Amino acid sequence: MRRIDQIEPFRVMQLLERAKELEAEGRKIIHMEIGEPDFPTPASVIEAAKAALDSGDNFYTPSTGNPELQKALSRWYADEYGVSIAAERILITPGTSGAFSLIYAALLEDGESVLLSDPGYPCQRNFIRLSGAEPLNIPVGPETRYHLSADLIEKNWRLGTRAALVINPSNPTGTLIADDELKKVAAACRRLGGYLISDEIYHGLTYGTKARSALEFDDHAIVVNGFSKRWAMTGWRIGWIIVPDELIDACRRVMQNIFIAAPTLSQNAALAAIAATDEIEVMRKAYGERRNYLLSELPKLGFDIVVEPQGAFYIYADVSRITGDSRRFCWDMLEKSGVAITPGEDFGRYKSNQHLRFSYATSLDDIREGIARIRKHLESA
Amino acid sequence: MRRIDQIEPFRVMQLLERAKELEAEGRKIIHMEIGEPDFPTPASVIEAAKAALDSGDNFYTPSTGNPELQKALSRWYADEYGVSIAAERILITPGTSGAFSLIYAALLEDGESVLLSDPGYPCQRNFIRLSGAEPLNIPVGPETRYHLSADLIEKNWRLGTRAALVINPSNPTGTLIADDELKKVAAACRRLGGYLISDEIYHGLTYGTKARSALEFDDHAIVVNGFSKRWAMTGWRIGWIIVPDELIDACRRVMQNIFIAAPTLSQNAALAAIAATDEIEVMRKAYGERRNYLLSELPKLGFDIVVEPQGAFYIYADVSRITGDSRRFCWDMLEKSGVAITPGEDFGRYKSNQHLRFSYATSLDDIREGIARIRKHLESA
Repeated sequence: MRRIDQIEPFRVMQLLERAKELEAEGRKIIHMEIGEPDFPTPASVIEAAKAALDSGDNFYTPSTGNPELQKALSRWYADEYGVSIAAERILITPGTSGAFSLIYAALLEDGESVLLSDPGYPCQRNFIRLSGAEPLNIPVGPETRYHLSADLIEKNWRLGTRAALVINPSNPTGTLIADDELKKVAAACRRLGGYLISDEIYHGLTYGTKARSALEFDDHAIVVNGFSKRWAMTGWRIGWIIVPDELIDACRRVMQNIFIAAPTLSQNAALAAIAATDEIEVMRKAYGERRNYLLSELPKLGFDIVVEPQGAFYIYADVSRITGDSRRFCWDMLEKSGVAITPGEDFGRYKSNQHLRFSYATSLDDIREGIARIRKHLESA
Repeated sequence: MRRIDQIEPFRVMQLLERAKELEAEGRKIIHMEIGEPDFPTPASVIEAAKAALDSGDNFYTPSTGNPELQKALSRWYADEYGVSIAAERILITPGTSGAFSLIYAALLEDGESVLLSDPGYPCQRNFIRLSGAEPLNIPVGPETRYHLSADLIEKNWRLGTRAALVINPSNPTGTLIADDELKKVAAACRRLGGYLISDEIYHGLTYGTKARSALEFDDHAIVVNGFSKRWAMTGWRIGWIIVPDELIDACRRVMQNIFIAAPTLSQNAALAAIAATDEIEVMRKAYGERRNYLLSELPKLGFDIVVEPQGAFYIYADVSRITGDSRRFCWDMLEKSGVAITPGEDFGRYKSNQHLRFSYATSLDDIREGIARIRKHLESA
């Protein structure tokens, strides 16, 4: 099979397209499938972008990014996590998607592999396949809070495995890896001669706790983050990756060739975003309210939340009390009751038929309406 | 050798870094090495971007791009080239770099190959290597206007060759491929069962002639273009690729996974750029003046321009009357006389020591000063 034929489409896109068709027919659809903040970018970031436009600076930055942004992020790591990260280790990328394209290009060869959790963010498997390498999808469940553990990493690591990926808080489960486990995971990867890649894109979107960066436990960890989620800047395509010294040169060469550089205006706007702490706190509080509401309502309807999610804007529910076919359930729910939810199949194969993901990146009013519709849907089924 | 170890850095970056060091020491450096427009983005595009910022639309577009932009480009192809291209064949990418990441991911497998010209744009070789495939660098000279010809393609095509790439007008030579040759090149690729990839990023920057799109000759050609050069929008990272119907689905799957989407604001700004015809004509005329000046002055100094360049903002000169080592010549010129020029080695191996590339993406005043310095440098050598 050709490499391209192994690249799966986002299945949820089909659901989203159908939702849009229904909307075009005049129906009101409740969107609990989308993993994109429903908030506009903070006003202070918009104003900074306008000022940057007026400055006339529309030229390429260095491939590794605007040095001012690298320095600002270095200071931010000191403030946010108490770690000292040299600015030149922080590479500015076109979104976290760019960061993953970059690191897999720099690390992987044909026939090598990366350990991933199943369920997990579906693009990861495809990124790795496009590098000619193999994603090793390791089934995870409530016993490890839906995360890879040091034990699972030790057991599944093969000759040619180069890294293990943790996304913390997790997409789709919203769960955090325990701090002591993250420390053990980092140590396991190092002992096995590979890298821990920690995707921290949902950091800052936690409720009642704080996510720790892998860099707090191991300076050798590779950390990916960006402005899309916490700062509501998806369309700006701006992220970063922190790599150990020994990978900087390889990454720079890849960046010069495949990106030239991240968007200049977005880099300038990101400088303002770092200072927008009050504006992002307003969003976090709104997500927190929505989360509390769903955590109280969903179990009453038969959706089992086995591990309480502490972060991101996702709730991963076990629906086996309701159905054995979450895909069909989600499509029925959309067609009959106008509520869009992502079926488990989008995130892997392990028990995917008995799970689905709610996103609360949608207004509380819509979520209330969604819950009412789901209740009615279940009563009439 | 690992794949990453085959990825070459941009050599000219080292020259550029040294130039910046010298500037930091207070010296005035004349930049004739940089392939980036020296003009700011047109004012009408800046205003459109500000309006887009005010609209609050900072969310992802569909992976294949904002449908309005796809449609606008479809109309633009009808106006500009008289060809009818369905909007859904026009995929919006993060710069032309994104377009190449995409098409090579969709087309190539380990062990396959792509035909390229030597000299040529250096990133191409690295893109292809990162896909696990092999760039076949075919020496080209004045006899084919420094382009692949149908004859060269027929002779060098192998089992597993998937495409031939033409960049027209060429970087580094600024030469156009003859219209009848482009037609033959497209036919040859089709006959051989592969694709012609036509990089048309310098279209619109031609002087006394007009470049033809490969799509005028063959609807099956893959065309790459973007807003960086003609519209002076490098930092916006916005381009596109036109693919035949049979590749749309594969490309969409790759885009969903590796980009999510091109920057939203840049896509909105690009809609305004298409209408900015007067503003881009002012830039084209300025490049034309600079070109005329250099074409008259360089030969007097011993730089042989064997094929007159009709496009882009480059002049590729044979320096064998002056030196047998263009690399050393360029470094000497920078250190002693403060003029930065790109040595041939950046573009390949074929006769690279006896060539160099002048860019006239720099003001006419600076170019005049550069010529004066070069004259003095040669006299004192």
